Amino acid sequence: MPEGTVLISEAALKGFCAAVMERLDVLPKEAAAIADNLVEADMRGVESHGVVRLPIYAERLAAGAVNPRPNVRVVRETATSLVVDGDNGMGQIVGMRTMEVVIDKARGGDGGCVFASVRNSNHFGAASHYAEMAVPHGMIGFSFTIGGINHMVPWGGAEGMLGNNPFAVALPAGEEMPITLDMACSVAARGKIIVAAAEGRPIPPDWAVGPDGQPTTDAVEALKGFVQPVGGPKGYALTLVIGLLSTMLSGAYFGTEVTHMYDDLDNPQNIGHLFGVLPVHLFEDSATYRSRMDKAIREIRGVHRRPGVERIYLPGERERLLLADRRRTGIPVGQGVFEELVQVGNRYGLTLDRVGRQP
Amino acid sequence: MPEGTVLISEAALKGFCAAVMERLDVLPKEAAAIADNLVEADMRGVESHGVVRLPIYAERLAAGAVNPRPNVRVVRETATSLVVDGDNGMGQIVGMRTMEVVIDKARGGDGGCVFASVRNSNHFGAASHYAEMAVPHGMIGFSFTIGGINHMVPWGGAEGMLGNNPFAVALPAGEEMPITLDMACSVAARGKIIVAAAEGRPIPPDWAVGPDGQPTTDAVEALKGFVQPVGGPKGYALTLVIGLLSTMLSGAYFGTEVTHMYDDLDNPQNIGHLFGVLPVHLFEDSATYRSRMDKAIREIRGVHRRPGVERIYLPGERERLLLADRRRTGIPVGQGVFEELVQVGNRYGLTLDRVGRQP
Repeated sequence: MPEGTVLISEAALKGFCAAVMERLDVLPKEAAAIADNLVEADMRGVESHGVVRLPIYAERLAAGAVNPRPNVRVVRETATSLVVDGDNGMGQIVGMRTMEVVIDKARGGDGGCVFASVRNSNHFGAASHYAEMAVPHGMIGFSFTIGGINHMVPWGGAEGMLGNNPFAVALPAGEEMPITLDMACSVAARGKIIVAAAEGRPIPPDWAVGPDGQPTTDAVEALKGFVQPVGGPKGYALTLVIGLLSTMLSGAYFGTEVTHMYDDLDNPQNIGHLFGVLPVHLFEDSATYRSRMDKAIREIRGVHRRPGVERIYLPGERERLLLADRRRTGIPVGQGVFEELVQVGNRYGLTLDRVGRQP
Repeated sequence: MPEGTVLISEAALKGFCAAVMERLDVLPKEAAAIADNLVEADMRGVESHGVVRLPIYAERLAAGAVNPRPNVRVVRETATSLVVDGDNGMGQIVGMRTMEVVIDKARGGDGGCVFASVRNSNHFGAASHYAEMAVPHGMIGFSFTIGGINHMVPWGGAEGMLGNNPFAVALPAGEEMPITLDMACSVAARGKIIVAAAEGRPIPPDWAVGPDGQPTTDAVEALKGFVQPVGGPKGYALTLVIGLLSTMLSGAYFGTEVTHMYDDLDNPQNIGHLFGVLPVHLFEDSATYRSRMDKAIREIRGVHRRPGVERIYLPGERERLLLADRRRTGIPVGQGVFEELVQVGNRYGLTLDRVGRQP
């Protein structure tokens, strides 16, 4: 672990996050759910969607830019579709409540494919969380969202008009672990550029463009600019389509309407999502599906490996293994993030116990 | 145009392709549809899914590996789902018939979100074709398929177990053209490596791995190996999930079950697809949706451009403009592909008229 990294137990970190949310008037059950969502992202090694977000969540709630007690409601409904108004609640609350309704609806009667569009939501953490809610019900889950900052340019452009929009698909398996795809559309996370800038290191030429839209290896210049899409025009098309799917079916903000999650604390973000489920049994005998998924997973895992590669991982597998590991050993939190959390704690009279600090 | 390129009119090229299909016992209406599908891919500049495929289509039909007169039928159905058996028909026929049934079903009653899984199909050309069928009906269309060859390795692997699986999403707009995302999961098409090998040129290091799974810039070595996924592990996860969505819900082949489209003419491929539609009006007032889409498209197109960039294109726009252009001027067909087509024509007593040949 890098110097200064602090090790914190799952219980301590979740308790701390939940307590901060409760101080900001979030209901205890929902505060606990938000804490689970953030801390488990760290446990899975997805630090970009973990407790690093707690300070901005707290700041937006404190500023009144997010509603701690939303009346999340279905505003439009048919046999296969829902439109949900998140009442400017925390994205985690809006996302979880919506996915619960989607799953209930998909289980009703003979079951059905159901999709829900969402408006008036906020940053919802890791997209995988909502897609994976479908898995225990024998359903394939889909989760799309628009990002909270226009960090990307249209291909050939020099002006931020697109989020680094993520999506997730989760597929149940049999004896094997489910498969989860969860990806955003940039080559590298912006957080990696922040670290390179802080350390005075150059970045690879495909990570970012400067404010003029030209590729740059200067991390400081890159931070004034935009992250590059994965696969060039492919990633541009993908992030655009994910953004449209997440907003055009619900009236959520897109393009010039998007406000900045960190810089604008005066206005609600009106973030949009799209969720959906395909119940497996509608298409295939469940036992057949499960055994074929297990066979596919074992074939992938069992292929000849490139020299030096010890193990082939399925999408989401590395994250699940790491989560189990960190449940036992504690969660490493970088020094900078730890100090930010301590500051938030000080503001609300809360302390954050650590398992240990690396020398 | 490269030396030897032949210019052929839309009518002549479509007529030729349809005639070849008819000689191989495909019904006239379906032969015309297959010809439209192939030739329009060339017109849109997607040569990898154009008439370059006619020879292998003809070969598989002639060998009896594909059924020219399939009984495409729905074998399982609920209010929101379909399972379709393609009876080993041409993928274009199976795909179009399935999408027609999906759209009809989605329009019935108050309308609904509908998904269809497909088995016993074949290579279906460009995925966008089927997703775009939803657009005139005010629906968002989705189209996923598994590829016909295991050209990709699991991340870290040295054994082909995955197709370069494509998917497409098409969204209606208002006055603006619809938006179509259509992408496969490799950094570069295998066809580009074939060209580099023929010309003795090296390839960029992120295009391919050799048979040992190690990245290579040697095009000849690359052809013995596998194409690299876009974004490394992201593209691996994406192609895997597209492959599973296309096969696990219908009993289509995956992994070791997959046969080689070009090398195995003795066995049906049992290719699988997944199609789906989300009718816009279930979620949002149609006029509001259309005007918001137009606004989004105009904002994207209107961003500040990188120096030297003349125009920002929306996904699918460049292809639609090129199609209109080639409808007027004719379709350029490379010398090698043209000679292959002439050979196929000779076999069936058909000639291929050209508009002109470049010097």
